[in-house]
Amino acid sequence: MNTTYSERILKTPKSFIREILKVTEEKDIISFAGGLPNPVSFPQDILQESMNRIVNVEGAKAFQYSTTEGLKPLRKYIAERYEKLHNLKVSAEDILITTGSQQGLDLMGKVMVNKGDVILLEKPGYLGAIQSFSLYEPKFIQIDLKEDGLDTDQLEQELKKQQVKLIYTVPNFQNPTGLTYSRENRKKIADILSGYPAVLIEDDPYGDLSFDGETYPYISDHTLENGVLFGSFSKIITPGMRIGWICTKNRELMSHLVTAKQAADLHTNIFSQYLIDDYVRHNDVDTHIRKISSLYKDQCRAMLNAIDKYFPKNVRVTRPKGGMFLWVTLPDGKSTMDLFYHALERKVSFVPGNPFYVSGEYFSTMRLNYTNSSKELIEEGIKRLADVM
Amino acid sequence: MNTTYSERILKTPKSFIREILKVTEEKDIISFAGGLPNPVSFPQDILQESMNRIVNVEGAKAFQYSTTEGLKPLRKYIAERYEKLHNLKVSAEDILITTGSQQGLDLMGKVMVNKGDVILLEKPGYLGAIQSFSLYEPKFIQIDLKEDGLDTDQLEQELKKQQVKLIYTVPNFQNPTGLTYSRENRKKIADILSGYPAVLIEDDPYGDLSFDGETYPYISDHTLENGVLFGSFSKIITPGMRIGWICTKNRELMSHLVTAKQAADLHTNIFSQYLIDDYVRHNDVDTHIRKISSLYKDQCRAMLNAIDKYFPKNVRVTRPKGGMFLWVTLPDGKSTMDLFYHALERKVSFVPGNPFYVSGEYFSTMRLNYTNSSKELIEEGIKRLADVM
Repeated sequence: MNTTYSERILKTPKSFIREILKVTEEKDIISFAGGLPNPVSFPQDILQESMNRIVNVEGAKAFQYSTTEGLKPLRKYIAERYEKLHNLKVSAEDILITTGSQQGLDLMGKVMVNKGDVILLEKPGYLGAIQSFSLYEPKFIQIDLKEDGLDTDQLEQELKKQQVKLIYTVPNFQNPTGLTYSRENRKKIADILSGYPAVLIEDDPYGDLSFDGETYPYISDHTLENGVLFGSFSKIITPGMRIGWICTKNRELMSHLVTAKQAADLHTNIFSQYLIDDYVRHNDVDTHIRKISSLYKDQCRAMLNAIDKYFPKNVRVTRPKGGMFLWVTLPDGKSTMDLFYHALERKVSFVPGNPFYVSGEYFSTMRLNYTNSSKELIEEGIKRLADVM
Repeated sequence: MNTTYSERILKTPKSFIREILKVTEEKDIISFAGGLPNPVSFPQDILQESMNRIVNVEGAKAFQYSTTEGLKPLRKYIAERYEKLHNLKVSAEDILITTGSQQGLDLMGKVMVNKGDVILLEKPGYLGAIQSFSLYEPKFIQIDLKEDGLDTDQLEQELKKQQVKLIYTVPNFQNPTGLTYSRENRKKIADILSGYPAVLIEDDPYGDLSFDGETYPYISDHTLENGVLFGSFSKIITPGMRIGWICTKNRELMSHLVTAKQAADLHTNIFSQYLIDDYVRHNDVDTHIRKISSLYKDQCRAMLNAIDKYFPKNVRVTRPKGGMFLWVTLPDGKSTMDLFYHALERKVSFVPGNPFYVSGEYFSTMRLNYTNSSKELIEEGIKRLADVM
């Protein structure tokens, strides 16, 4: 094409994972690379009942254009669930339904970030956030993620050093590491942030998937005016329907987000909003979530057991309390990119740590997903990985 | 919130229509304001059959994460339909499924437009495009839309005067005017554009809704390297599912659009893609479309008859050959904003011309939608409008 593209798209990383997934989609590969929920988490037959009920009961409303903010009863359900599980006082007006919580990233970037604005995020951090925010040409700074949460010294230092616009975090069962911020770490972060105007995003797609049923308070819980929560039905009902949300009590921010959402896609698929709403009202969501968490706990344990059995002792690994991923660090700065290609020859795949860092360097880390393989394949896959190490 | 928003969101118009629709949603108002398809266009019972078939046949695939580009068979169907109806040689690889064609606007803005870049669009032009592109801070220039299409002298002049990045058009049954570019006008535009690197978007949500069955060639038909087509199932099957697409044969542009799409929402609702795909394969789409067009033709005629009967003779009106809207111009520069408030007292609504212009001035024009009222209500509404004129 005899024309020029925008500067922003030329600066945006192509998805490394997409390229990897293309290679690893061959049938005989044991894949720890993706981030796919186990299909057991999709209550298909029950969703089918809901679909038929919606067509019969709601009729044309489920097929027509709808409001940008989203289906009111579903927004109300989400608000009430925040109150029930976290004692947060939010209402339907504080919830904007988005096309997956990924869209939340795009909308927040759109309404907040000017070129060169500083965004803090975890090191390592969710690659989808890095990609999405990149389009708004920020300056990224990564804050070390430790066993118990963010490095608060680094956080404070960076906040002092410059004006920070956004802070993006995944405090529960983080992607990519599986780590969870401790209660103390959350409190400390809240205390530090209360002195600054930076907006804190807590992206929480995995919080329900706790192995021991424990829930953690949000960092912005009752205290931070500038706290924004992201949520999603992708990991507990179905990702294919792309139903997520943004929660903020700030009406001015919400008004800008609604304008940006309308410009982006007018509104989220309304049939799917009716579907999720019908499902949560006719079924015991918590029992369903316990079934998923219990499966993932078993799969995670199978992977950790295999790692303990087969991996060299100087390989470090996180021990998640929930979620879908764990994180491996090789000794002596060995490259996981090299390992990746050797592993592929043995028909095992994973995601090398590289795309979770903004520096573009290669690293000796890697992400393993355990939710989409049987316990037998998990053991076999880890054994093969150990062989090539 | 003790923080600052992005410059781009502060420059973006809030949707005027949203505000209007809130007022006009009261039940006893005759609304010519919205742009809602008639529910008769949603084949609900047949879609219900498709839903059940998809859950039974496709199972988990319809609920899982999916590819950013979209469902391959659906992309193939769209490509084949371009060949069948327009003799265009495109393949599935040239189609990106989007969350409604509205998302196409956001993605094209994202990958093409730097701050200050020039975008040409019709005067008056689709307000959703003005809103969506505004987020990329372009310089808008509107080119007069005449009975037979764009003012080609103005177009050529603006292309000569400066580097133009994008040209946005709705050549078939335009929103807001209902006007259609003539074959000669299309040819002339293509000839002019062949000398310039500007990218031409032809947004075509209404092209199927032709009252006399006539189809028109795309401007970029076989000739323009930089032509991009937008399409949508919203007006012929269901808007609530948000399934649209971008068609371009330029692989570099497509690659950037896919990256932007992934950053925006990972992928379009996959269940709805399976649904539309199943529907088009098991049903006669053309017969369904003829049913919708025939209804709209009757409704449009009812509105024009009432206008001829009741409106003062010096009021000008377009006579659409298809689509959902017609366009009224009051004599002597009378304000349609004044008329709007008086009409509301008589329980009739429409959209004043103002938001279809980038200048922000008020105008003596207005858009009337005829697809979502009965012929009786159309006559009654036009009569009341005539009374308040």
